[in-house]
Amino acid sequence: MKNIKVIAFDADDTLWVNEPYFQDVENKFCALLEDYLSHHHISQELFKTEMQNLALYGFGAKSFMLSMIETAIKITDGNISTSAVEKIIEYGKTLLEQPIELLDGVQDVLSSLYGKYQLVVATKGDLLDQERKLEKSKLGSFFHHIEIMSDKKESDYLKLLQHLSVDPESFLMIGNSLKSDVIPVLNIGGFGIHVPYHTTWAHEHMENELIHERFIKLESLGEVLVHLK
Amino acid sequence: MKNIKVIAFDADDTLWVNEPYFQDVENKFCALLEDYLSHHHISQELFKTEMQNLALYGFGAKSFMLSMIETAIKITDGNISTSAVEKIIEYGKTLLEQPIELLDGVQDVLSSLYGKYQLVVATKGDLLDQERKLEKSKLGSFFHHIEIMSDKKESDYLKLLQHLSVDPESFLMIGNSLKSDVIPVLNIGGFGIHVPYHTTWAHEHMENELIHERFIKLESLGEVLVHLK
Repeated sequence: MKNIKVIAFDADDTLWVNEPYFQDVENKFCALLEDYLSHHHISQELFKTEMQNLALYGFGAKSFMLSMIETAIKITDGNISTSAVEKIIEYGKTLLEQPIELLDGVQDVLSSLYGKYQLVVATKGDLLDQERKLEKSKLGSFFHHIEIMSDKKESDYLKLLQHLSVDPESFLMIGNSLKSDVIPVLNIGGFGIHVPYHTTWAHEHMENELIHERFIKLESLGEVLVHLK
Repeated sequence: MKNIKVIAFDADDTLWVNEPYFQDVENKFCALLEDYLSHHHISQELFKTEMQNLALYGFGAKSFMLSMIETAIKITDGNISTSAVEKIIEYGKTLLEQPIELLDGVQDVLSSLYGKYQLVVATKGDLLDQERKLEKSKLGSFFHHIEIMSDKKESDYLKLLQHLSVDPESFLMIGNSLKSDVIPVLNIGGFGIHVPYHTTWAHEHMENELIHERFIKLESLGEVLVHLK
């Protein structure tokens, strides 16, 4: 990693807590409908609806809200109460209003790397929501550029690299998702560091361990500093 | 306008038809609830909900869908049928799946300006949805840069100008909204051209006519070419 010039960080569950808030809302959603189906099956149905809507809605809390409403109607065969729909909207709004809780070591790592590398945020999700989270995080001043992406495929990373005028061999992406943050970056010739978070959205799940010459897996973000020395 | 180097275009109702699709969905939404309230009052209530949610949800079709559902629950005092909620979701999805209909003269204007100026899209709204519309429009190759913004305030334009490394006096913004496309750009020292569209969302309405040395109002986009000669 001697030639790294630009380090991009994923945001949700890499810089700050996110997935637990979504899982908390999903649990409440399941409890709301437990007269109709088991939690497990409700989660399955919700995931199915989310995947069906993904191409149309994209990622983020508003998409999640709309998919919950759609799933609730389906599961209850149209018998869902209005107050339950109201609750789903209310739960969704709490996601958008969530305070930001930085993950351990984030501040230190960014302070240490700042000035030595060009630091960038590369995050998926809802434009306004991600901007708001970044503002709440107070981390904005560390970053040269914020890229909010509708997806994280190879082509999306290639566009980002072009925009930053950086070659893949000088680009490192750090994130909690092998599928979104690491694999596509390795595929275009960049470096990837995986810092798993204790909980991962099913969509981002990957079973296999990865072995690659431009890849490292770490236990915590703080360990990044050792590898970039 | 002799020193213009960068021309930014708004997208919805400047490059392609948008607001009529939203109004069509709003009409269907009002028809759905006409047993409870007049169309006019339903529209008013919907607008109120949209404005209340704007800071949280931002612009775009998904926000519109969520605000319609919330308004429907409110108007019916919780008595809305599930099938009506289903219809609202269905209407909303048609917005996201809408084909792109370019406005008159767009292709000609972009072809004529291409190569002489740096052309940019500066649009508000949902990230994925705006990217998708641009792809459907097949106009992408005219543009040096696409900026999808969560809002169009002075600070947002200043960020865009910094990003493009252009001075305000070399920047021209063209759009159908005085409030979003023109006033903030004039305020930071840029040029603005207003090409009104026959229908405007209430949020973008401005009553007053504008007179300003760096501002022109045109009847159609095609007239831009005369002024940039």
